[in-house]
Amino acid sequence: MTTTVRTRVAIVGAGPAGLLLSHLLDRAGIGSVVVDQRSRDDIESTIRAGILEQGTVELLDTLGPVSRARTAGHRHDGIELRFEGEGHRIDFAASVGRAVWLYPQHEVLKDLIAARLDRGQDLRFGVTAERIDDAGTDRPRVIARDADGQPLEIEADVVVGSDGSRSVARATVTGSSKGGYFREYPFAWFGILCEAPPSSEELIYSNSPDGFALVSQRSDTVQRMYFQCDPDTDTAAYSEAQLWDELQKRVPGTELKQGPIFQRDVLRFRSFVAHELRRGRVALVGDAAHTVPPTGAKGMNLAIADVRLLAAALEALLLEDDERLLDAYPATASRRIWKAQHFSWWMTSLLHVAPDATDFDRRRQIGELRTVVESEHGRAYLAEAYCGWPSDA
Amino acid sequence: MTTTVRTRVAIVGAGPAGLLLSHLLDRAGIGSVVVDQRSRDDIESTIRAGILEQGTVELLDTLGPVSRARTAGHRHDGIELRFEGEGHRIDFAASVGRAVWLYPQHEVLKDLIAARLDRGQDLRFGVTAERIDDAGTDRPRVIARDADGQPLEIEADVVVGSDGSRSVARATVTGSSKGGYFREYPFAWFGILCEAPPSSEELIYSNSPDGFALVSQRSDTVQRMYFQCDPDTDTAAYSEAQLWDELQKRVPGTELKQGPIFQRDVLRFRSFVAHELRRGRVALVGDAAHTVPPTGAKGMNLAIADVRLLAAALEALLLEDDERLLDAYPATASRRIWKAQHFSWWMTSLLHVAPDATDFDRRRQIGELRTVVESEHGRAYLAEAYCGWPSDA
Repeated sequence: MTTTVRTRVAIVGAGPAGLLLSHLLDRAGIGSVVVDQRSRDDIESTIRAGILEQGTVELLDTLGPVSRARTAGHRHDGIELRFEGEGHRIDFAASVGRAVWLYPQHEVLKDLIAARLDRGQDLRFGVTAERIDDAGTDRPRVIARDADGQPLEIEADVVVGSDGSRSVARATVTGSSKGGYFREYPFAWFGILCEAPPSSEELIYSNSPDGFALVSQRSDTVQRMYFQCDPDTDTAAYSEAQLWDELQKRVPGTELKQGPIFQRDVLRFRSFVAHELRRGRVALVGDAAHTVPPTGAKGMNLAIADVRLLAAALEALLLEDDERLLDAYPATASRRIWKAQHFSWWMTSLLHVAPDATDFDRRRQIGELRTVVESEHGRAYLAEAYCGWPSDA
Repeated sequence: MTTTVRTRVAIVGAGPAGLLLSHLLDRAGIGSVVVDQRSRDDIESTIRAGILEQGTVELLDTLGPVSRARTAGHRHDGIELRFEGEGHRIDFAASVGRAVWLYPQHEVLKDLIAARLDRGQDLRFGVTAERIDDAGTDRPRVIARDADGQPLEIEADVVVGSDGSRSVARATVTGSSKGGYFREYPFAWFGILCEAPPSSEELIYSNSPDGFALVSQRSDTVQRMYFQCDPDTDTAAYSEAQLWDELQKRVPGTELKQGPIFQRDVLRFRSFVAHELRRGRVALVGDAAHTVPPTGAKGMNLAIADVRLLAAALEALLLEDDERLLDAYPATASRRIWKAQHFSWWMTSLLHVAPDATDFDRRRQIGELRTVVESEHGRAYLAEAYCGWPSDA
């Protein structure tokens, strides 16, 4: 027997984008139902990105004290670019008067889930959306199965696909599960979590002849680090000692503080933007709409920028019957999406060693790194993008 | 019968680099002989680059009133970047408080030749250098033939190769005529000179789906324009009407003022840096040491930056017997060379349409153009490089 639920906005996917959208809609008095095929525990424990733009933190502030970004997170006023064995600080505060916060995505999700449940949000885990019907009408429906495998339909005024890079909603919007602008990269990141004190107070983005490494942090006792690897690397291919060797040789000039490695993963790189971001009453946000390589730390921030726009568009549509902002959403969102795609590609190409790089390419890359770090304008150009462009850009 | 000439510095090549070097050495009381295989008339009439960085103009000012860069040239306080049919001004004055001068290279050469001859410089045209001997000694020799085909040898304390991209001196320094870092590009520029009023007061760098175009100026009645073409394009392949069509469709949104086209050329793109810039008492400057694609207008300016460094090194060596600056010259010059290589590559990749560009690449490029023009920091980052980094960078 099919259960049917009616709501104003059906949100498929309880990641940062979907949950924040339900929050913003609630503030405007618009009800929503949020479903996700994962369990709450899965969502709250999956290790993902960790850098929040200042504008992202400011939007999370609207949750009230339940957002721990400023209290449990750490404000970072700069990063280090390291090449030819020397570190060069990009001082965000001095360059653009802004900052980022180190606060892992799963912590953001804990805050968002707690905040939504506290407000009585209809938020259902273990619900698998199968498809979206009637996108071209003003009563689109999410066809799903609930946690017990029973059929569930959600009828809404609008359906939002915030269901990640393997989005089910995307097929409805683009007409195929693939339709998009796409780029692959000939490398990936090998990520580790280890028990050790921080090797650096701020993130170190290190270019070396052996490839890229990123020295990041989680807490006083747990650290997150990455090094450039082949996309087909097996996480079991290295002993712990070998992993420290690989990391250390990519960060010449800084001695990494070592400790037991308790998690390993390989992050593949791809750039993707769906050909369409909206069809009728179905719209895409976040990873359902686009994927960026992780180098610029833009993934979650870009998802939240989409949500900011879409929330305003849905308020206009559902409260004032004004569809213009929703009509404009694909073009408006695309402006920031393609800037973020560029920035993510740029940070990647600036810092990684491509397997087919010639001696010319390698020296040009060092010339580019020097041009950036030696110029107040170069440093500010990078800092502005890293901390996040204004919300209207 | 071989004629032998003795001098302190033998300079092979009477381009901007060689002539300016002889001027700077003369000011320090160091004599030189300059030879070039071309005739004076050839040198003074070949159409080349036309944009001088502010630092280049300031160095030419030391020639006195004979330098007409500020009087016959035109100061430009900005350029326009044009894409998606809209122009965006990069305001050099507002961004970095600097400017460039539009003043063609052959006019610079007329000034330099007049200035050198006026000072009694030994400057010989039609002299073909064949090789350089004894580079490893403190009496290197240029082995040449004079305008009448008679053998000529120039013995010097130092030999400088300022003999352009087909440098004879380079083989002595690098051990081969080719040894260098190298990149080719899958496009070229089709350049025209036409009799018409200016279509724009400042240069327009235009990105379009049909490729790149540059709208430049020469005078009130003569204009210089370029459009991206296949490197194998025959200059006779287009009628005048077709040339205007090709140009106009690459500059949507601006109506080009047309007139008779009286010169056509195809400029091939390459990036090159010699593996070595100095061997013993032989040093390379300018195009003998490096070639850049023309998009960033860096070629002549980079040659003159080399000369600034080398003149100081030769003064230290020849007046104070201090070889340290000459020893440091390759490393010191390389810093600016690789920044300029990067900038030239960047302006090229930012504005041209690569034949194999995907839809993703094309949209990322627009995203990059927007990131630059919408940000004061992006505009200043570009302006600073275009107007020229400080002389110690």
